[in-house]
Amino acid sequence: MHITETVLRDAQQSLIATRMPFDDFEAVLDDMDKAGYHSIECWGGATFDSCLRYLHEDPWERLRKIKSHMKNTKLQMLLRGQNLLGYHHYSDDTVRRFVRRSVENGMDIIRIFDALNDMRNIETAVDECLKAGGHAQGCICYTLSPIHNLEMFVSLGKQIEALGCNSLCIKDMAGIMSPQECYDLVTALRENIKLPVYVHTHATTGLGYMTYLKAAEAGAAGIDCATSCFSGGTSQPATESLVYALAQMGFDCGVDSKQLKKVNDFFLPVKDKFSANGLFDPYVLSTKTDALNYQIPGGMLSNLVAQLKAQNAIDKLEAVLEETPRVREDMGYPPLVTPLSQMVGVQATVNVLLGERYKSIGKEIKSYIKGEYGKAPGKIAPELAKKVLGDEQPMTGRFADTLKPEFEEAKAYLGSRARSEEDVLSYIAFPQQAEQYFDRRDQTFTASYSFKEVG
Amino acid sequence: MHITETVLRDAQQSLIATRMPFDDFEAVLDDMDKAGYHSIECWGGATFDSCLRYLHEDPWERLRKIKSHMKNTKLQMLLRGQNLLGYHHYSDDTVRRFVRRSVENGMDIIRIFDALNDMRNIETAVDECLKAGGHAQGCICYTLSPIHNLEMFVSLGKQIEALGCNSLCIKDMAGIMSPQECYDLVTALRENIKLPVYVHTHATTGLGYMTYLKAAEAGAAGIDCATSCFSGGTSQPATESLVYALAQMGFDCGVDSKQLKKVNDFFLPVKDKFSANGLFDPYVLSTKTDALNYQIPGGMLSNLVAQLKAQNAIDKLEAVLEETPRVREDMGYPPLVTPLSQMVGVQATVNVLLGERYKSIGKEIKSYIKGEYGKAPGKIAPELAKKVLGDEQPMTGRFADTLKPEFEEAKAYLGSRARSEEDVLSYIAFPQQAEQYFDRRDQTFTASYSFKEVG
Ligand SMILES: [Co+2]
Ligand SMILES: [Co+2]
Repeated sequence: MHITETVLRDAQQSLIATRMPFDDFEAVLDDMDKAGYHSIECWGGATFDSCLRYLHEDPWERLRKIKSHMKNTKLQMLLRGQNLLGYHHYSDDTVRRFVRRSVENGMDIIRIFDALNDMRNIETAVDECLKAGGHAQGCICYTLSPIHNLEMFVSLGKQIEALGCNSLCIKDMAGIMSPQECYDLVTALRENIKLPVYVHTHATTGLGYMTYLKAAEAGAAGIDCATSCFSGGTSQPATESLVYALAQMGFDCGVDSKQLKKVNDFFLPVKDKFSANGLFDPYVLSTKTDALNYQIPGGMLSNLVAQLKAQNAIDKLEAVLEETPRVREDMGYPPLVTPLSQMVGVQATVNVLLGERYKSIGKEIKSYIKGEYGKAPGKIAPELAKKVLGDEQPMTGRFADTLKPEFEEAKAYLGSRARSEEDVLSYIAFPQQAEQYFDRRDQTFTASYSFKEVG
Repeated sequence: MHITETVLRDAQQSLIATRMPFDDFEAVLDDMDKAGYHSIECWGGATFDSCLRYLHEDPWERLRKIKSHMKNTKLQMLLRGQNLLGYHHYSDDTVRRFVRRSVENGMDIIRIFDALNDMRNIETAVDECLKAGGHAQGCICYTLSPIHNLEMFVSLGKQIEALGCNSLCIKDMAGIMSPQECYDLVTALRENIKLPVYVHTHATTGLGYMTYLKAAEAGAAGIDCATSCFSGGTSQPATESLVYALAQMGFDCGVDSKQLKKVNDFFLPVKDKFSANGLFDPYVLSTKTDALNYQIPGGMLSNLVAQLKAQNAIDKLEAVLEETPRVREDMGYPPLVTPLSQMVGVQATVNVLLGERYKSIGKEIKSYIKGEYGKAPGKIAPELAKKVLGDEQPMTGRFADTLKPEFEEAKAYLGSRARSEEDVLSYIAFPQQAEQYFDRRDQTFTASYSFKEVG
């Protein structure tokens, strides 16, 4: 059973808003490398944005520095397919360059997903990853809906296999996959496709540990865990606990328990620091089961509540909770993951507050109905489609095919401020944050240079 | 699958030092009664002491008030056998009266354990519970040691059955029982005894959820869970999560999910109050896996660390951690539960700090070696026995047989300050706290009476 340690990416993203600077964990990297993890998830997701925006680090440099400590262990990242690390589609030339540079800077395994499970949105990233010599892991975003059944998931698994992916990941970002559902899904996938199946979940609803146990029993190839002091709640189940339990059940995780303890002992004071400075809000650790009642992710639920409170309309919560699944049905059951969870939630709220359904329709929903996010998993309700499209036809092709190449233009715009192709890619991914980072970097350089001249 | 909800006892004891006053939960009792729990653990353990000491409540009155709301649901309590709710042995007359009054005041199920698993220490309580018409649940305290194997546990189960208990509980107070160990133990017990087997654990080490899942698969009759906002960490796994997961696996818990949500929604602001006033320290929620490395409970480990820090000798921690299992072995492998965990830990620390083993021996350890706590599970090391006993023989009989009846004397001492037999029992259990409570009660009464006279 492979263990992927997530403390450097998903765990810190889930618990401390991705605010862990490289200096906080550099000293433990050699020990992490000796622990026997299959991989360390350390890049992608929100880390890239956070490096530029809050930590004033070059994300590419972080990757290279982490890599320099890894003699045994693969590095892993999370990538939103055609969206890379953001929420809109990039042109294929950008996607290919980004993926290639990721591999060239040290990334081993790229986990690639699309929020709609439209595999056309991951195919370019997968293709380039494979060409660059990386391990491409295709994802199925797990969700509950009347149309998301084993048959659909197996069909998605076959598409992932057909893309040439090296492995498959069931990605349950909201922690709503139950142990039985996981067992059945891993079993069905293994019966129908040859790829190793990895399972990713969160401890949010209290199902995570049990779900991983059943993943193992169903023959999953690996699970994602977080070192215990960064585990639980919105993060992953604890590495040490799973390793201990699975070992007794005959699943060898290949890790060294003493080394796991060293790693956790290292991170304890790091966590204490974030507790003290308030970035670690213990609220995230408590088990929240409302997602199981409403079949919507906990994060989406708290967004709905916050929206309604801001509108002084919290008394409409029940109505919004009833409208939410109807909007989702009208939209062809998109998985409730960012940004779709927000889109569905806002539209449901607007429908209720205006007292008329779809009187006002969000810009993003319109783009979605037009097919600009990809293909909806199910059928869009005809009335909603008609309202948005009128007599137009929705796009049936791949949205990224309509995008012009972006890289050369961005490179030209940045000129000498970009010191590398990586800088250009940072800029394309997060223009404002990257420019601020470049400015700061230039200033820092000048300042220290001037000092030398004077002193 | 039976669900016992622990929020009113073990969960609040584990998370907020048992400080929840009756007024905080009275309003939810009717809803709890409608939830479909097999039982509600609401009394015993530390609640009795806390009522008298901190909350200025009569514990017996609390029991009667809770009972008055229960039309459908059984009440459950935890009792330390011959120790009742404390840490020394009481005379049989006290134990019988305490147990009988518990049942008469509304208790349905009494879970009875002895820290050494010496069944002579639970037999009087079990016998009286049965005679009073209560449900007697005998416990096996779960621990890991070379002699605590399936054979020993099954033999303990047979003793519990022979006592006439209605059911058996595997009590894993430290959360160190792994899912596989639980599966094997429940299976072995079910093959060898006829009693329904209940499983009690904590989420402390991250094993709890998985352990309950395997308990269910092995045919356990029930599990102890806590409503989600009072679940996790040192408390129990979450009720709603287990019910949700088990239902999909074909285990009907007989509870109403909507009602569970009502209950949890009620306790959310209660928890927030304890977060705000500092009694709820979020530290207790984080998963702590050191107990799995050292095979000793987390609470014992933090005690050791605190002791050594107080002695300015934290550099001796590794030595103490190596000495601890040796002391435990010398003592015949007592389960590491209160008070034995403290006794073993202190002795190990003393052995290391004095640089000579058993140069000084604690008073409690001496009593233990003399047999005053009951029979050690294994053999006491001859050198240690010799050091304590000299040429004396240890007691082989039942310690409580040497105790004189206590009740009448206490009743006479209290005189009119005791308004009931329950008051006398409160005094015997916690003399100082009970007297303070009686004084306060009398003052309150006088004060309000005087006020009437004047006004
Ligand atoms: Co995740
Ligand atoms: Co307990």
